[in-house]
Amino acid sequence: MSRLEARTAGPVHVVGTGLLGASAALALRARGVDVTLADPSPTAAALARDLGAGRLRTAEEPPPALVVVAAPPDVTATVVAEQLGAWPQAVVTDVASVKLTVLVELRRVLAARGAGEDALARYVGSHPMAGRERSGAVAARGTLFAGRPWVLCPTAASSPRALAAVRALADDLGAAPVVMEAGAHDEAVALVSHVPQVAASLVAARLREAPEPAVDLAGQGLRDVTRIAESDPALWVQILGANAGPVAAVLRDLRDDLDGVLAALEQLDRVEDAHDAAAKSPGALAAVAQLIADGGAGRARVPGKHGSAPTSYAVVTVLVPDAPGELARLLHDVGAAGVNLEDLRLEHSPEQPVGLAEVSVLPAARTPLEAALRDLGWALVD
Amino acid sequence: MSRLEARTAGPVHVVGTGLLGASAALALRARGVDVTLADPSPTAAALARDLGAGRLRTAEEPPPALVVVAAPPDVTATVVAEQLGAWPQAVVTDVASVKLTVLVELRRVLAARGAGEDALARYVGSHPMAGRERSGAVAARGTLFAGRPWVLCPTAASSPRALAAVRALADDLGAAPVVMEAGAHDEAVALVSHVPQVAASLVAARLREAPEPAVDLAGQGLRDVTRIAESDPALWVQILGANAGPVAAVLRDLRDDLDGVLAALEQLDRVEDAHDAAAKSPGALAAVAQLIADGGAGRARVPGKHGSAPTSYAVVTVLVPDAPGELARLLHDVGAAGVNLEDLRLEHSPEQPVGLAEVSVLPAARTPLEAALRDLGWALVD
Repeated sequence: MSRLEARTAGPVHVVGTGLLGASAALALRARGVDVTLADPSPTAAALARDLGAGRLRTAEEPPPALVVVAAPPDVTATVVAEQLGAWPQAVVTDVASVKLTVLVELRRVLAARGAGEDALARYVGSHPMAGRERSGAVAARGTLFAGRPWVLCPTAASSPRALAAVRALADDLGAAPVVMEAGAHDEAVALVSHVPQVAASLVAARLREAPEPAVDLAGQGLRDVTRIAESDPALWVQILGANAGPVAAVLRDLRDDLDGVLAALEQLDRVEDAHDAAAKSPGALAAVAQLIADGGAGRARVPGKHGSAPTSYAVVTVLVPDAPGELARLLHDVGAAGVNLEDLRLEHSPEQPVGLAEVSVLPAARTPLEAALRDLGWALVD
Repeated sequence: MSRLEARTAGPVHVVGTGLLGASAALALRARGVDVTLADPSPTAAALARDLGAGRLRTAEEPPPALVVVAAPPDVTATVVAEQLGAWPQAVVTDVASVKLTVLVELRRVLAARGAGEDALARYVGSHPMAGRERSGAVAARGTLFAGRPWVLCPTAASSPRALAAVRALADDLGAAPVVMEAGAHDEAVALVSHVPQVAASLVAARLREAPEPAVDLAGQGLRDVTRIAESDPALWVQILGANAGPVAAVLRDLRDDLDGVLAALEQLDRVEDAHDAAAKSPGALAAVAQLIADGGAGRARVPGKHGSAPTSYAVVTVLVPDAPGELARLLHDVGAAGVNLEDLRLEHSPEQPVGLAEVSVLPAARTPLEAALRDLGWALVD
């Protein structure tokens, strides 16, 4: 994070010094912005301070210009309302991963307090699409948001000043700001984040009581599908609970598709041999083929590297001995050939001291790269 | 593939010169084994021959010692029966990715021909757990099976000679032979391969009609979950159709889990705010938490690299500029520190000319590696 002049005017008050709050504070401090810290747990706040995330706020401090609420989803609205009340000039944002629940509850809390649209004018909810497996200030890092989308959800009541302040925060943290309506945001993350999490957990849960020889046959496909099933249950109860409606809507459609393919498979299973199945159940086979084809069409829409439109890279596959320095030597040779690596996948060969490195490059670079690597003695396996 | 003496006695006759058949033939040829080729498509057989996979079989040839049937699942049993009849001394195996359907149909075809247990004595079905996105002889490579599990499914009728011949084939191709009953094999691959494929397609299919701004928020989690949704529908119709019973059994359990979490989410959605949800629906929240926890428990059983038991590696995360040679320089520095890279994951930062490299190493190597990399000026982001 370079020490360019920050667009964010401090002091910034960070309420909640977990992973996201402490990471934002570290990034702001790195850019020279004055940051004060608070957390319901004094120990957590002191830990963040000790890690260099800012000062603890005292009563004599000047009021903050911007407040970042990084609290658990189920208390976010209450904390936002408190902060709007405590600092009548400050812009307030939150970083909860669901937005409509927070907004609806915030409106109600503000109404109950007799505060109205003028308080809401200073609030713009937001959601940085960043995180990691570990939580808490110890896992925080100033680079957490670098290059990630940061969704901003202004309401009709939000002032231009408030939106500009939160956009400047996202910019200063190296994120890519995206403006979206709160409900659209929640539907989007249900689709691209929350439902994939549920699906990964559903598949992984089936492995709990599988015989050992069965799980020993697992390959890269299963590993990829289930990787995010390692996530923290406590966090996901909050996220799924707060976005229950949009997640349920996508899951219902997914369940209908599943019921369709299940009915087709059960129909095929009742037929005794594969030849008969082909003859008697063209509809069942077509249903299975349609699902796989639909999946391919959906997958093609997932953006590639750097948020760009999906690009077809050429893949050069190389056998790499599993020894220190061998992969480095390969990538050195790729770099020396003047070719930029667009992506790299390591495929592990079980019980074999060799790996396959799948090197993705721009299509035009493929042939020269293959020639260069062969000249240097690399075994290409394509 | 070194030119050690092959254990497989030729001639080996490969029937079906697609990806698997041609790859096996190439690997056997590389070890000096005599290989003859056949395919229902003369063009396909000639292509495999031209790629160096063996000779076309002529009428004057001596009979094969081993026949490898690499046909589509739905014709495999018929072809195996034909080959058992044509070569009364030969051992016959097949490489279809489902085994019980093939065995049941083979018994019936043999009975219809008046052939009995003595023909079945020479048959051992098998399944090399190898493949790739592309198909056909042009995609074949002799290293395809290196280090992969190769499941052998002898029956009570199989002779020790037949089992030994197929085991020698797997060994010669560099695979790791695993003996398993046909039904157990089919249940295992339903769980670790076929159901993950269906789940990836189900999640990806939901993306087809999503708004562009929603898919633009996709991150690594969605990319991992949906990667295998790129697979070929025609192939998967055959595989899922031939293993319909075991796949349906796992999918029914998965559907029941899905219905449970869906009911819980719908219950939570009916409650107006998150606080009330926590108070009124402890059962619903618990159901969601249980699914995520079950997923974590199942995921923990997935083997890691080299088929070993899952190992906890230490992960060192490094900021890498997205320029030719930078990743190579990093991995060179890792190798120069005397540290073996156990795994590598590149995390892409959308719209940012920098990537995060997550370098997995043995836990004891972590601290010295971090020190070495910091000394060399690398930015670690942990």
